[in-house]
Amino acid sequence: MPRYRCTIEYDGGPFVGFQYQEGRPSVQGALQRAILAFCGETPVLHVAGRTDTGVHATGQVIHFDLEKDWPARTVMNAVNAHLVPDAVAVLACEIPADPEFHARFSAKGRRYLYRILNREGPPALLKGRVWHVRRPLDVDAMHAAAQRLVGTHDFTTFRDAQCQAKSPVKTLDHVSVAREGEEVRLTFASRSFLHRQVRSMTGSLAEVGLGRWSEADLVAALQARDRKACGPVAPSDGLYLTSVDY
Amino acid sequence: MPRYRCTIEYDGGPFVGFQYQEGRPSVQGALQRAILAFCGETPVLHVAGRTDTGVHATGQVIHFDLEKDWPARTVMNAVNAHLVPDAVAVLACEIPADPEFHARFSAKGRRYLYRILNREGPPALLKGRVWHVRRPLDVDAMHAAAQRLVGTHDFTTFRDAQCQAKSPVKTLDHVSVAREGEEVRLTFASRSFLHRQVRSMTGSLAEVGLGRWSEADLVAALQARDRKACGPVAPSDGLYLTSVDY
Repeated sequence: MPRYRCTIEYDGGPFVGFQYQEGRPSVQGALQRAILAFCGETPVLHVAGRTDTGVHATGQVIHFDLEKDWPARTVMNAVNAHLVPDAVAVLACEIPADPEFHARFSAKGRRYLYRILNREGPPALLKGRVWHVRRPLDVDAMHAAAQRLVGTHDFTTFRDAQCQAKSPVKTLDHVSVAREGEEVRLTFASRSFLHRQVRSMTGSLAEVGLGRWSEADLVAALQARDRKACGPVAPSDGLYLTSVDY
Repeated sequence: MPRYRCTIEYDGGPFVGFQYQEGRPSVQGALQRAILAFCGETPVLHVAGRTDTGVHATGQVIHFDLEKDWPARTVMNAVNAHLVPDAVAVLACEIPADPEFHARFSAKGRRYLYRILNREGPPALLKGRVWHVRRPLDVDAMHAAAQRLVGTHDFTTFRDAQCQAKSPVKTLDHVSVAREGEEVRLTFASRSFLHRQVRSMTGSLAEVGLGRWSEADLVAALQARDRKACGPVAPSDGLYLTSVDY
C-alpha cells in the first residue's frame, strides 16, 4: 500500500478552502474526485496546511495511500488529467523514502507569501490574486516594524477568534517586506501559524505602511494579547501558501 | 472638447479581442459602456494596438474626446467604477499636452511580452495567462536564434494569412529570451507588428528551444518568406501588450 506525496498548486478563488464541505467546491473535493476517477479509490487526504476560503497555494503538500501500486509519475499525470477544468494542479508526486512520512505531522515549517498591488489603478489581470491598496506604502517602515514580530510570542492579537489551536504562542522565524515593481510582497516563515495569523499581521503591517500606525503601535498591539488590538485583517485574495519544509 | 489619453490593463481571456463586435464581449465594448454610464457620451475610441482574441494588455493606450471637460483623474476613477466586474482597468489618464495626440498614429513603438510556463505540472494559478510547455526549453539557444530576427526583414513567414498590412516588411528593434524561475519570458519591440507576428515568432523560437529546429532552420524559415515555413503559432494565452512608446 504505497504512500504518495504530492505538491499542489491552486487558485483559492473558486473554493471554500482546502477542506471538504458537502455540496460546496473545495480543493480536497476536487482532488478526491480526480483520484477516484483515475483509480477508483477514495483515500484519506492529509494536508500540510488547511487553507481558508479564497487562499491560494503554489506549494501545498498532501499525502495519501493507494491500495494499488502505481508509478508516482502516472499518479501525477492521471490526477492532473482528471482535475481539468478545476483550478488545481499536481506539480510533483513521489513515493516518500520514509514510509511514515506525514504531510502535516512531518512538516518542520510553512512559508506564506502575501501580495499587495500598490498602485492607483485596480487590478484587471491580478483580480482575486492580490490585495489592492491605492495609497503608497512605506515598505521600509513595514519591514522594520515586521522584525518586531519575529521570535516567540503570544500572538493572541493576530489570531482569529475561531482559532482552535491549543496555545496562542508561536515562533515566527522570518518576515520580510519588499517592493517588486507595483507589488509589495510580504514573506512569512514559521513552524506553524495560528488561524488567519498571516492576514492579521499583514493588515496591521499595512497600517504601518500607510503611516497610521508607528512601529511602537505594532509592538503595543502584539503585547496587548487582545484580538481587538489587531488592525483590519487583510483579504484572502493576496495570500499564498508557497512551501512546506520537512 | 478635451482629449483623454488612458493606459489600460486587461485580461484578454473573456474577450473576442479589443475591437467591438456586435453582441460579443470586447474590450472596446466594455470601455464604451463604462464611459457612457459615467458621462452619457459615446466617443470614438482610438487604440494603439488592436489585440486579438485572448491576448492580454498591461500597457495598452487609447484616446477619446469628450464634449464635457472633466478632470483626468475623475475620468479614470469613474470609468474604473463602471468597468466592474469586467476584467479591464484604467491605470492612468491624462489630457495630453499635444492636442493632436493620437493613440495609434503618434505611437513610435510597441512592446510585447510572451510568457511560457516551462515546467511539467500544468498551471492552476496562471491558467489562460501563459503557454504551458512541459519539456525543458534551451533558453540560450532561443535567445541566440532570436537575434537573427532583429532588423528589417520581409516577415511574410511570421504573418497571419489574414494580415491586412500593406507591406510584410517590418523592423524588429529588440528580442530577448530569458528564464525567470519556472517561466521563459520573451520580449519584443518594434514600431509596429504584423498580425500574429509575435505569436508566430514565439512558436518558431520554441521549436529552437525544444531542439527541433536549429538557428539555421529559423533563418531559413525567415528567408523563405512563406507562411508555410512558420512553426506552430503560440497560443494567445501567453501574449501581453506591455507598453506603447510615443
